[in-house]
Amino acid sequence: MGTSAGRPASHLKRPEDGRFDAEGIYGPVADDLRQVEAALHGVAGSPEARTGGVEERLAHVLAIPGKRLRPSITLLASRLAGQGSDQRVLAMAVAVELLHLATLIHDDTVDRADVRRGHATATSLWGSEIALVLGDYVFATSARFVCDTNDLRVIRRFSESSCELARGELMELLDLDNPDVTRADYEQRIYNKTASLFTTAAETGAILGGADEEGVDRLRTFGYNIGMAYQVIDDILDFESTSETLGKPAGQDLAAGIVTLPAILLKERSPGANAVSEFLAAGRDSPSRLLDHAVEQVRSSGVLDEARGVVDGYIGAAVEALAPFEASPERTSLLDIARFVVERDY
Amino acid sequence: MGTSAGRPASHLKRPEDGRFDAEGIYGPVADDLRQVEAALHGVAGSPEARTGGVEERLAHVLAIPGKRLRPSITLLASRLAGQGSDQRVLAMAVAVELLHLATLIHDDTVDRADVRRGHATATSLWGSEIALVLGDYVFATSARFVCDTNDLRVIRRFSESSCELARGELMELLDLDNPDVTRADYEQRIYNKTASLFTTAAETGAILGGADEEGVDRLRTFGYNIGMAYQVIDDILDFESTSETLGKPAGQDLAAGIVTLPAILLKERSPGANAVSEFLAAGRDSPSRLLDHAVEQVRSSGVLDEARGVVDGYIGAAVEALAPFEASPERTSLLDIARFVVERDY
Repeated sequence: MGTSAGRPASHLKRPEDGRFDAEGIYGPVADDLRQVEAALHGVAGSPEARTGGVEERLAHVLAIPGKRLRPSITLLASRLAGQGSDQRVLAMAVAVELLHLATLIHDDTVDRADVRRGHATATSLWGSEIALVLGDYVFATSARFVCDTNDLRVIRRFSESSCELARGELMELLDLDNPDVTRADYEQRIYNKTASLFTTAAETGAILGGADEEGVDRLRTFGYNIGMAYQVIDDILDFESTSETLGKPAGQDLAAGIVTLPAILLKERSPGANAVSEFLAAGRDSPSRLLDHAVEQVRSSGVLDEARGVVDGYIGAAVEALAPFEASPERTSLLDIARFVVERDY
Repeated sequence: MGTSAGRPASHLKRPEDGRFDAEGIYGPVADDLRQVEAALHGVAGSPEARTGGVEERLAHVLAIPGKRLRPSITLLASRLAGQGSDQRVLAMAVAVELLHLATLIHDDTVDRADVRRGHATATSLWGSEIALVLGDYVFATSARFVCDTNDLRVIRRFSESSCELARGELMELLDLDNPDVTRADYEQRIYNKTASLFTTAAETGAILGGADEEGVDRLRTFGYNIGMAYQVIDDILDFESTSETLGKPAGQDLAAGIVTLPAILLKERSPGANAVSEFLAAGRDSPSRLLDHAVEQVRSSGVLDEARGVVDGYIGAAVEALAPFEASPERTSLLDIARFVVERDY
């Protein structure tokens, strides 16, 4: 990636206590983010939610610890475009994070996950039925917040992203265990599943900040590339990780039948015989040594470096998109985010 | 109910073939409804959905047979307010039906239902995970359609209704088996779960049709009362029904732990000892004779007549709300809908 970022990114590493250092990376919008947090808590505390246990359950799912990357991008994009963070931009940032939280709740329900970032999932606490409907409520609440922007263009972009998120999740489910997934399929899927909301987070911030069309386009490009890089890194970490860093053993996606970039790259290199295809052919109930073998082959083959090269391409494009903007704390912060995305190990 | 409806409602009964007679009741908007149907089919057929089995699954869930009551109310309200059905009103009608369909998909997933109106459910065909995400996609698509109204006021109302629908479903789940549910709890729950979307269907039609505030208020009142009546009738039919009329045995809601108006009225009459409280105290795994006894006591006690009186109150208020509008085919059609809601036996 470029060297444009104004300060070293070493402070972006995970601190000892496991908490994300939001003050360091999001400096210019740290105060705004506190308002976003307050609004997220307010959703659970709103009077109309005060009925028979609804409120406490909402409070729990809205307290999933998070890096708040997406709302920070919205807030920073708006400021970079020239506008301070008014109530409309704050509403947009809240909407973006709520939509993300809604997808996490439903993802955990689909995956039957017990824990998310050390936080018990709704499905594990109250069953999949209540988790499903809690996700629906958070999803609908995100759409209610975006109305407070009073801006038809950003409302429309937001609704399109909501569709794309669901479509990405559908594509992932329908492609489980599919040995024929191509790199194009993968790119389409991760755009929908992850990069769409990053794109919308940046683009809507730019629009609400009063950017001209070129500025909107540049920030949209930034968001898209950050989102793509973010997901590819996720998929690399799934093969690289150990129980110590990510809190789960390596190869969990492949074990669940999700074919990601490293696996696709390995299949491209050795279309005839490779351990990923062998694992997929044997099925998810096959002996764990087949999975271990696939993970080992991905690690030793060099495809993870190739995947990191793909990430560098995305990050380079993201950094380049910001080059025409004058140097400012906001631009530095967005470049820090770009660097954080590629350097994170969790 | 009143005698304001201009023509006999006998044609509203379910025809021999089990199909709803849309031409008879929705006359003034029959052509518009065909466009709504085409748009619903178009969601599945849209190019961006043409990926790995997404399209065929969407086509299936969008083909759940329905009476199209809600979009018809939107279309009729708009015409009653003075406007023909332009593209904005059609988009609103499609959005309203898509939101309804999304909730049916998620309801069936929560209830693990195999069949809805003779149509295999998504959850029974492809599992709860895919059904959940298909519902999310339809939900998000409804929000995309409502943007085509280009009207911030109706977009906001729609997003509020989306929240209320999810809240209603949450309230129902959290109140399962609760013997202390009051009539006020019940009214709040069915407003959220059912009447909110009827209210929004009528109100947004009125707004888009250019009604003045009094007209908007009258049509909102109409929608609210129709929605409340619709749900109470549903809850009455659950006790009255036989396998022949509704395709399921009586008392299914109570069997699932859902305490509805007839059960609440019985508990109010005999707070000390009644078969509903006995069933709830024994739990859902209790012998089926306890359920049969509760159903029998509800039927013989006269509370179903009392519940019908509640329905008559709602229908009376709905009819009254339309009284100031000049006689027109649209008004007649809305009054037919009011009569259909109370006379239906399915």
